[in-house]
Amino acid sequence: MTAVTRVAATFGWKKGGLAILANTPSPATPRRMKKLILLALALPSLASAQTIGDRAAALRDAALASDTVAWDFVEGLTTEVGQRLAGTEAEARARAWAVRRLTELGFSNVRIETFDMPVWVRGEESAEIVSPFPQRLVLTALGNSGATPAGGIEAELVGFDSVAALEAAPDSAVRGRIVFIDHNMMPTQDGSGYGQFGAPRRQGPTVASRKGAVAIVVRSIGTDHHRNPHTGVQSFGQGARPIPAAALSVPDAEQLRRILARAGDRPVRMHLVLTPRQTGTHQSGNVVAEVPGSDPGAGVIAIGGHLDSWDLGTGAIDDGAGVAITVAAAHRIMQAGRPRRTIRVVLFGAEEPGGFGGDSLFARHRSENDVVLVGESDFGADRVWRVEFSLAPANAALADRIAALLAPLGILRGPGAADAGTDLGPYRRAGAAAIDLNQDGTRYFDYHHTPDDTLDKIDPAQLRQNVAAWTALLAAAADAPERIEPAGAPPAR
Amino acid sequence: MTAVTRVAATFGWKKGGLAILANTPSPATPRRMKKLILLALALPSLASAQTIGDRAAALRDAALASDTVAWDFVEGLTTEVGQRLAGTEAEARARAWAVRRLTELGFSNVRIETFDMPVWVRGEESAEIVSPFPQRLVLTALGNSGATPAGGIEAELVGFDSVAALEAAPDSAVRGRIVFIDHNMMPTQDGSGYGQFGAPRRQGPTVASRKGAVAIVVRSIGTDHHRNPHTGVQSFGQGARPIPAAALSVPDAEQLRRILARAGDRPVRMHLVLTPRQTGTHQSGNVVAEVPGSDPGAGVIAIGGHLDSWDLGTGAIDDGAGVAITVAAAHRIMQAGRPRRTIRVVLFGAEEPGGFGGDSLFARHRSENDVVLVGESDFGADRVWRVEFSLAPANAALADRIAALLAPLGILRGPGAADAGTDLGPYRRAGAAAIDLNQDGTRYFDYHHTPDDTLDKIDPAQLRQNVAAWTALLAAAADAPERIEPAGAPPAR
Repeated sequence: MTAVTRVAATFGWKKGGLAILANTPSPATPRRMKKLILLALALPSLASAQTIGDRAAALRDAALASDTVAWDFVEGLTTEVGQRLAGTEAEARARAWAVRRLTELGFSNVRIETFDMPVWVRGEESAEIVSPFPQRLVLTALGNSGATPAGGIEAELVGFDSVAALEAAPDSAVRGRIVFIDHNMMPTQDGSGYGQFGAPRRQGPTVASRKGAVAIVVRSIGTDHHRNPHTGVQSFGQGARPIPAAALSVPDAEQLRRILARAGDRPVRMHLVLTPRQTGTHQSGNVVAEVPGSDPGAGVIAIGGHLDSWDLGTGAIDDGAGVAITVAAAHRIMQAGRPRRTIRVVLFGAEEPGGFGGDSLFARHRSENDVVLVGESDFGADRVWRVEFSLAPANAALADRIAALLAPLGILRGPGAADAGTDLGPYRRAGAAAIDLNQDGTRYFDYHHTPDDTLDKIDPAQLRQNVAAWTALLAAAADAPERIEPAGAPPAR
Repeated sequence: MTAVTRVAATFGWKKGGLAILANTPSPATPRRMKKLILLALALPSLASAQTIGDRAAALRDAALASDTVAWDFVEGLTTEVGQRLAGTEAEARARAWAVRRLTELGFSNVRIETFDMPVWVRGEESAEIVSPFPQRLVLTALGNSGATPAGGIEAELVGFDSVAALEAAPDSAVRGRIVFIDHNMMPTQDGSGYGQFGAPRRQGPTVASRKGAVAIVVRSIGTDHHRNPHTGVQSFGQGARPIPAAALSVPDAEQLRRILARAGDRPVRMHLVLTPRQTGTHQSGNVVAEVPGSDPGAGVIAIGGHLDSWDLGTGAIDDGAGVAITVAAAHRIMQAGRPRRTIRVVLFGAEEPGGFGGDSLFARHRSENDVVLVGESDFGADRVWRVEFSLAPANAALADRIAALLAPLGILRGPGAADAGTDLGPYRRAGAAAIDLNQDGTRYFDYHHTPDDTLDKIDPAQLRQNVAAWTALLAAAADAPERIEPAGAPPAR
């Protein structure tokens, strides 16, 4: 209800709002008019805000109707470069591609800011049930997985329904075996299942290693039913020797569950080959581009997505879409004339293996103390359904105006706070204001981190809605007449 | 309209049909009653047909409500055996598994009838674009594909929209190159797209070889958007030297199209490794089981599906479902008491590489001249939506009765003729009567011949509807009081 009240208070911002009221045949009492005027006076520089709002709405609607920059960007990146594993030459080609394209688009200060990072690369990967029901299963190594010898290992499987069940098992039930952890993740619109159901991938390998398992296979952290396993990063914790760690595709995990059930008392033995390796320290980098603002004292708005991807797909929804959406939106602002605030678009390197690009950007630039507002797009390209704010109380009116601009796109105002994602989270955690545009995640984990993360998973109409939302947000925030205040560090959860 | 008229004439068969009429408050004129009596007299042994129809309806409804035999069969086969490539030891394990299971279920005369066949097996397979946009593409070899050297080949790609466009091209545009053929198959309920749009797979390799191509890659004959290519058989025609021939997954074919478009005048070069091989002659076999009939002179009803599968998935919809459905339906008839006619269930070997099992069965048994009616289930496990008949004119009433029994399952009567599929087609072409129960194929080509053909693609409720349809058909046909006549050879198309 609070959200609805706030949105209702922003009608003065809606294009033609007052005009529509004046034309309405229902009686506008003098009392109501007076209230409107008082409300108008309470807004900072209403005439200016009104103009900015009209302009933002027009830019939003133009993006929704006809943006092609985002599609062209993500098509180009995924076609001409393809996969872009962090710290590899493919990611370097992506940076060169992006610099070329951003320069062609007319951005200023286009540059690469490099950093070093440890690089893990995939090797051979195969698995087969040796007995009692011989057959191959499809899996893929998780980030930082240890390796088997080239010829593989063979061991008995032991299955668990959760990390908690594995933890509760005696070490003797695990030692020398290959652990299998299942789960039952369901799709959620806000993607919240990824936290809880991601435990087998994130904690499973460490727990299995500490208990003496020789390897671990988990059900992919995914909501699809295709033979395309979901990779993703994990890190072995203190005291956990790296062991081979892989994700089975969802159909293969279900198959393994059935195999274990039908085997009864017979041991189920698996032969597993996984030969990934740590290749040492290599260079990655962030690509930075700017739309310079007219008022250097008004602060910088930093937005973006990540340029790296996992190696299995072409990184279309994760996160070619995010960089394309934010580039396209910033480009629309640039084309419409110089904004008050500088917009800095960052195409982050090495997000997937652990947010190295975001940490690097923040470490390099924090002392400049110029970033006042941040937001990242890193949840695919389906329709934005919700906006959440972390703005200072003094900027409540700005949040109201932005929410009102987004409502015609079907975007509701959520009850939570914005965290600006992995890459711009460091700025938010240091107190900068943030706005999250949440994409519909219902089908995101069907494709996330799989070979199936390809361009065809992006719906051009929904992509345009994303560009429209980001354009509206940027237009309103970049030219906001008031100061954008620090929002303060987020509370601990 | 003809179909509707025919169905309307069968009300005498519907459980309680006459009783309902009698209870209807609308005036049943003496004239109408007389017509009904005349109609009743025209049917052979109406009292008996009525009883048989009631029994068939009850068996149908029991199957729909609670069949578990089909699910257990297909789960067991796909879990305990998995893929079952024709002529391999996996297919032999499937035969042994089926004999054991059919015997446990109480079938009679359970046996394996072996035959020999040429066997082709998959090897390594990988492809990458070398220039101008280096990246890997996902593909799989087509049946009977030739091989590259172990190190692969590298050549320039040349793309065509159809086999006709390839045929029209001068040989000089093709010689020494890797041909790519695209197409744009859409889903169809009756699966009819598989004929026309299957041309790149079936004819493409032969045409490309004759024109001097060094290899061919085609867009998978499929309607999905997953990185799981669709394999399938093809045979090099006269004068066509076997060349490496593979199917790209649909997303990869679309990617290749974009690569060719964005490359402009720059040549697109591919490195291709495909090392399948012909392994010579090996043994396959049909598994045969029977429900013995009480009247040896009434002829045999032969039904079934195929036990072999492609090697990429576990062959759940193609065709574990078909054998499970026909086994479960025959089992229900057996449990209900001895039918008049023998029901012979055949689990065919080696359908995928070219219908070797069907040809073998027919060649071995044709002289026995005992099969009067045939039907195969080989189009997945989605709901049966249509029945088509190839019955002799003298058996029109039997067709009417079966159609009426199927209508409550939502099955309509189609305008076409039944062909009994690849495996029982030889009997049909020799003149036997046939009935086809057409499954909804809208999503069949999303999974067909891919790694994604796994158990989770079968919906248990739709599987039960299939069993119910086959049970009704068998109950009506096995006990039909009239003679089942030869339908005559089908007309040429």
